[in-house]
Amino acid sequence: MEKTKIGLIGLGTVGSGVAQILLDHGDRTARQAGRVLWLEKAAVRDPKKPRGCDVPDGVLTDDIDAVVADPSIDVVAELMGGVERAREVVLALLNSGKDVVTANKALIAAHGPELFDAARAAGRTIAFEAAVAGGIPIIANLSQCLSANQVESLTGILNGTCNFILSKMHREGAPYADVLAEAQRLGYAEADPAMDVDGTDTAQKLAILAHLAFGARPDWRAIPRTGIDTLDLADVKMAQELGYTIKLLGVAELTAKGLQLSVGPTLVKNGNPMADVSGPMNAVRITADAVGELFLQGPGAGQMPTASAVVADLIDTAVGRTRLTFQTLKLWSAESDRTPVADPAEALAKFYLRVEAADEPGVLAQIAAALAAEGISIASFQQQASEAATVPLVLMTHETTEGAVSRACEAIGKLKPVAAGPVRLRVVG
Amino acid sequence: MEKTKIGLIGLGTVGSGVAQILLDHGDRTARQAGRVLWLEKAAVRDPKKPRGCDVPDGVLTDDIDAVVADPSIDVVAELMGGVERAREVVLALLNSGKDVVTANKALIAAHGPELFDAARAAGRTIAFEAAVAGGIPIIANLSQCLSANQVESLTGILNGTCNFILSKMHREGAPYADVLAEAQRLGYAEADPAMDVDGTDTAQKLAILAHLAFGARPDWRAIPRTGIDTLDLADVKMAQELGYTIKLLGVAELTAKGLQLSVGPTLVKNGNPMADVSGPMNAVRITADAVGELFLQGPGAGQMPTASAVVADLIDTAVGRTRLTFQTLKLWSAESDRTPVADPAEALAKFYLRVEAADEPGVLAQIAAALAAEGISIASFQQQASEAATVPLVLMTHETTEGAVSRACEAIGKLKPVAAGPVRLRVVG
Ligand SMILES: NC(=O)c1ccc[n+]([C@@H]2O[C@H](COP(=O)([O-])OP(=O)(O)OC[C@H]3O[C@@H](n4cnc5c(N)ncnc54)[C@H](OP(=O)(O)O)[C@@H]3O)[C@@H](O)[C@H]2O)c1
Ligand SMILES: NC(=O)c1ccc[n+]([C@@H]2O[C@H](COP(=O)([O-])OP(=O)(O)OC[C@H]3O[C@@H](n4cnc5c(N)ncnc54)[C@H](OP(=O)(O)O)[C@@H]3O)[C@@H](O)[C@H]2O)c1
Repeated sequence: MEKTKIGLIGLGTVGSGVAQILLDHGDRTARQAGRVLWLEKAAVRDPKKPRGCDVPDGVLTDDIDAVVADPSIDVVAELMGGVERAREVVLALLNSGKDVVTANKALIAAHGPELFDAARAAGRTIAFEAAVAGGIPIIANLSQCLSANQVESLTGILNGTCNFILSKMHREGAPYADVLAEAQRLGYAEADPAMDVDGTDTAQKLAILAHLAFGARPDWRAIPRTGIDTLDLADVKMAQELGYTIKLLGVAELTAKGLQLSVGPTLVKNGNPMADVSGPMNAVRITADAVGELFLQGPGAGQMPTASAVVADLIDTAVGRTRLTFQTLKLWSAESDRTPVADPAEALAKFYLRVEAADEPGVLAQIAAALAAEGISIASFQQQASEAATVPLVLMTHETTEGAVSRACEAIGKLKPVAAGPVRLRVVG
Repeated sequence: MEKTKIGLIGLGTVGSGVAQILLDHGDRTARQAGRVLWLEKAAVRDPKKPRGCDVPDGVLTDDIDAVVADPSIDVVAELMGGVERAREVVLALLNSGKDVVTANKALIAAHGPELFDAARAAGRTIAFEAAVAGGIPIIANLSQCLSANQVESLTGILNGTCNFILSKMHREGAPYADVLAEAQRLGYAEADPAMDVDGTDTAQKLAILAHLAFGARPDWRAIPRTGIDTLDLADVKMAQELGYTIKLLGVAELTAKGLQLSVGPTLVKNGNPMADVSGPMNAVRITADAVGELFLQGPGAGQMPTASAVVADLIDTAVGRTRLTFQTLKLWSAESDRTPVADPAEALAKFYLRVEAADEPGVLAQIAAALAAEGISIASFQQQASEAATVPLVLMTHETTEGAVSRACEAIGKLKPVAAGPVRLRVVG
């Protein structure tokens, strides 16, 4: 049987999962690839560090250039993380004639066009199934399985850390900071969780999916984005009372004026399958003109689920499918850039608003007037009894635009009886 | 741009959906395929019948041989249905040098080995995404996306008609016959629904998935199979009271002794995502060693969802991916036959048992003794008050084997106070 020689850059969480599959299940990968996938070299920073896998002698190196320069290696998986050094390494790999597989969403989101152009120029390929939604094969499903469809909308729970924290806030009624600390203890959140909890990671993944599903090329930094780090437990509890579950959603929706994109904690109506996605799971819900609705759920991160996606890419690359898809779709090229990004202010949505206001007559009338001035109609209203000086007023709006609700919120925030807020969250059915 | 010429055999529900996509969205299919997908000919029985799509002059023919013999046609989708004639047509297409796409699960389940051998001998390919679970890309997910995994179990709701009927029985408390009649009126069930409701269709699809996921080659007729046509509303109501939803499941589970397969109405614990799959939806839940758990839900049938799958196959075939996968996996060959089918009597499961018995002392003791004689322990027990001469006794067992529960049920059925039953259904968590 022929051999495809594999190099790994990075043998950390994901890399050692990939090495385990390659080393322990060579029969399986050979059957699926029609050729032996042979782990030839793995570059790390510190070759003396203990690893989660038994790497044969001669495989480990602390010299990335040794992988780049090895002419026997056909495909390399970049699993080192980071952006600038990873970019240099991937460019070097492509230029030395190697196909690349990567799990690095930050890299693709930042440098997709440059890297894909470089791969085209070098006649090589880049595969990145593991970069979004871990073990859910969302890249293959969008770029291949749904090819007969125009995708109309895509909603994703794309960050397992945030979903773990939100699930726990709902279940245990514990505030964000406590749950985050526990998630860090359990290894569900990094020591520095900023990129996860502030929505950066979700925005980067959404930007990648938006390109595949819609042919848009959004800058992830321009996607309106709220994290869960500012989420108040009061809103979690209120959502629950109203029959909703708060999820950090990345949403892409095709409108007449282009693609609407957003990332933020959202009230999801219980009964919607997204509301039931709990713990570190990820999920993607797609509506498309031929298939109707498709829902995929699975582990969004973790060693073996991510390794599953990386090895699937290695197999696809070894078989040659990656090359065909890569050549056909022309991702991150001028040709695949066909859908403009719409003005976020024009996004249509329903909103949940919470205001802390003095418990005095006429407050609701003033708030209602501020909403009416922007043409926003109120779908439901809730006021809670309270001993405190201020009471929480909770409103759900009918569909309106992001712009209108922003202006209304600004006006409401300035009303005299309003002590805090409004807190504003999107609502989906 | 180069052209791939497409032929269709059949322009009924699915065929006219495929024609619509090809005719109305040529830009889309060309972008995804890197070449034009050109509808060249479509064979039907009666070319004068009105069709759901505007077929250009010269495309329709009542002569299948005209499609077979047309040397300009590269790929043909068999969408005529049936088994024996479809088999002849597919063999003729392969032998005349055409790649084949089919939505025909009955054909693949009956003649997979013969057809795939013929394709290999002729140097052609067969793609069949639409044959299982309609719009859910389960074939691609199993044969490509999960290739780094050993699948451990697969559970499917694979028949939309049955799921529609079961959902309505649950929601409306209406008996099977009434709901079936309504499903027929609404077009969710065929005039002759036998193959759907008796579990044949699910068994055929499960046999196909078992081959892809496990490398087993079960004869679908040998899969133990119960339909929903014998399901009593009393059990639906009882399941509901106990916190379960009854679903027609196809289950494949890898055990030390081979692959366990079964099809039957099953009590699914509410909270399991399979319990929430309602109406004509299909779903597949997979556990696999690397990815953990993956859940896919989507429309299991219908014109456009099925056409979505057929056109995805046409595009994959035009791009060349189908050929690479086909050559690598060697489906339905001796080489891909690596997992034996296990003895159904040894299948491990929990069971729900309902017995109608005379309301007299000692009945439960006798039933419990019959279960104990087979080493079956009781997890819970329920007796309902009743005015009637007999009362329903409902038991849930701990895990036991199919064989043990069969023998116990036979013994229980012979007990003097037992008027009817036991009804026996599997239970999943
Ligand atoms: N972890 C997940 O669940 C997950 C899920 C999806 C995607 N990803 C992505 O996968 C990638 C890897 O993540 P990870 O969690 O596996 O990271 P990690 O555990 O920190 O591992 C990084 C590896 O890269 C090596 N490395 C880093 N910089 C290097 C350098 N300059 N030269 C040589 N080796 C270097 C490290 O070497 P040492 O071991 O010697 O330090 C380590 O082996 C990231 O892009 C991440 O976003 C991760
Ligand atoms: N319907 C679904 O939702 C669905 C979902 C998944 C898979 N499938 C599968 O897809 C296939 C087609 O199903 P369908 O619902 O589209 O069937 P259908 O509506 O009955 O259409 C069958 C088509 O085949 C033509 N045909 C049948 N026998 C023929 C013959 N001997 N010569 C020439 N043409 C012939 C018919 O011609 P006329 O129009 O002239 O009668 C008709 O156009 C079946 O294998 C089915 O199992 C269907």
